[in-house]
Amino acid sequence: MSPSINSQEVSVFAPATIANLSCGYDVLGLAIDGPGDRVVLRHTPDSKTKGLSITQITGDEGKLTLDPFKNTAGVSALSVLKSLGAEEESFEMEIHKQMPFGSGLGSSAASAVAGAFAVNALFGEPLSKVDLIEHAMAGEALASGAFHADNVAPCILGNITLIHSNSPLEVLEIESPKNFYLSVVYPHLEILTKEARNLVPKMLPVAKATQQAAHLGGLIAGLYSGDFNLIGKCLEDQIAEPNRKDLITGFDEAQDVALNIGAVGFGISGSGPSVYAISEGKQTAEQVTQCIAEVFEACDLKCETFTSGVNPNGATILSRR
Amino acid sequence: MSPSINSQEVSVFAPATIANLSCGYDVLGLAIDGPGDRVVLRHTPDSKTKGLSITQITGDEGKLTLDPFKNTAGVSALSVLKSLGAEEESFEMEIHKQMPFGSGLGSSAASAVAGAFAVNALFGEPLSKVDLIEHAMAGEALASGAFHADNVAPCILGNITLIHSNSPLEVLEIESPKNFYLSVVYPHLEILTKEARNLVPKMLPVAKATQQAAHLGGLIAGLYSGDFNLIGKCLEDQIAEPNRKDLITGFDEAQDVALNIGAVGFGISGSGPSVYAISEGKQTAEQVTQCIAEVFEACDLKCETFTSGVNPNGATILSRR
Repeated sequence: MSPSINSQEVSVFAPATIANLSCGYDVLGLAIDGPGDRVVLRHTPDSKTKGLSITQITGDEGKLTLDPFKNTAGVSALSVLKSLGAEEESFEMEIHKQMPFGSGLGSSAASAVAGAFAVNALFGEPLSKVDLIEHAMAGEALASGAFHADNVAPCILGNITLIHSNSPLEVLEIESPKNFYLSVVYPHLEILTKEARNLVPKMLPVAKATQQAAHLGGLIAGLYSGDFNLIGKCLEDQIAEPNRKDLITGFDEAQDVALNIGAVGFGISGSGPSVYAISEGKQTAEQVTQCIAEVFEACDLKCETFTSGVNPNGATILSRR
Repeated sequence: MSPSINSQEVSVFAPATIANLSCGYDVLGLAIDGPGDRVVLRHTPDSKTKGLSITQITGDEGKLTLDPFKNTAGVSALSVLKSLGAEEESFEMEIHKQMPFGSGLGSSAASAVAGAFAVNALFGEPLSKVDLIEHAMAGEALASGAFHADNVAPCILGNITLIHSNSPLEVLEIESPKNFYLSVVYPHLEILTKEARNLVPKMLPVAKATQQAAHLGGLIAGLYSGDFNLIGKCLEDQIAEPNRKDLITGFDEAQDVALNIGAVGFGISGSGPSVYAISEGKQTAEQVTQCIAEVFEACDLKCETFTSGVNPNGATILSRR
């Protein structure tokens, strides 16, 4: 027996995320306790249109398509509908983007997760959150060409996630230590994904690879033991950040300022241009956020800022009727 | 005021170690609770010979030199003596090797650590164990050409150690989880260090580097949480083992047998030829040890075997008078 639709309408939320976290390039990510995407999914059995229709998109500055086969949330929703054998039913979807685009904060992952999660919620959650990761990855791949789950996994599961195996996909969830706070600053400059990708080397000297591994090992130890000093020492990337940081005007100065004020670590969020810092304590994090923003503003860059803890829940159902 | 000699004679022990532990290539190691080297150091103020003399070496099959400037334990001892400003005093050293040579079990690190540690003990321990690492590395570099502390650090500190930074040297100690047992089997075949080194690539594809980092991160998480399933999944090396294992006759079969019997992970100890397996529980580990040895013996290789937990103490003072 295939799963059946057990709600008329659901409204779900999927959070913004920080991927990479420096030494965790391509494998580590965390969910931000703040902005994200909201998706409403409605079962419309009386509709003459079969399948999924996207009826409304807000907050996208007109950039997203209503075609469900070309829309990130649509593709991931269709992937789940297909796996549930329900492609022929009629559904309407609304997408409300409540976070910045192209910011390096996992905007496409949030849409992809919200789409897949909404379908699963409407059917009474027949699939686990881990099962939904591959469906959401299908949606995100459409938008960003990314085939890593480093945004999707924390977006759906919450917490800090380590993809310790890609094939088969295996994800470890790690709770953030007490007093772990994030400063997130999105300076309004455009980074072309293709350009950012071309800056990542294809090959790495073994000494750098072992240093990257040691830092990630140390970071995980720091997260388990709540050792902020260790966390800070290990937040260093050997792969992408040394080249990509030049795309972000003011990066080095923002890093210096953040660390001087009391952040333990600083780096690029995803492929940028957003940057993140980690601090022990909310008050320090708030000061760090403000001072990072001031550096970018002095470079004539407008900024959006968030100061938050780690979102422990990931994708959530806001309402269901 | 420089530290003064406060014992006439000390006897110290430094344990065998397993470096690399698969995904921790060059940065991870642990101390075995079993064999090791014993060094006796005596202050001989009435001697006519100034400086350090090595008077006796046992268990070395005649392979080691009594020349302290060319002997691993001698060089590390001299390095500590120099830092204490005591090179002109007279000392006699005995070295008792109680573990196999050239086995991949950190024989030269054990000698190097024992030499440095003995001097420090004779002077009432003016230096910390962490301070002694660089002195021991000087001794080990003489013997093996190695400039990594992945054997020296666990040998001196005990437990499982992660070198999370090489420069400056920073070491994290991790206690082994409950019921963590090692099977160590040394098949009597010779691996030339140079040959083993030439099999390690200089460059690594980034995808392999990120997989190595993710595995090491997952392994550290498994050690903190006592999750043997996770530990096992992460014990895989992308760098050295895929090539080096061909130097060890019977490796693949021994691995299959170990994992089938209940070990969670299996790999090369250091650069081999010894292999190690990790099991949950002593009884399983004992069976694993025996079955690995049987595979090698069926290949006409004599074996030495150890089944043990992790040594939590590292280098220790056996007696002091």
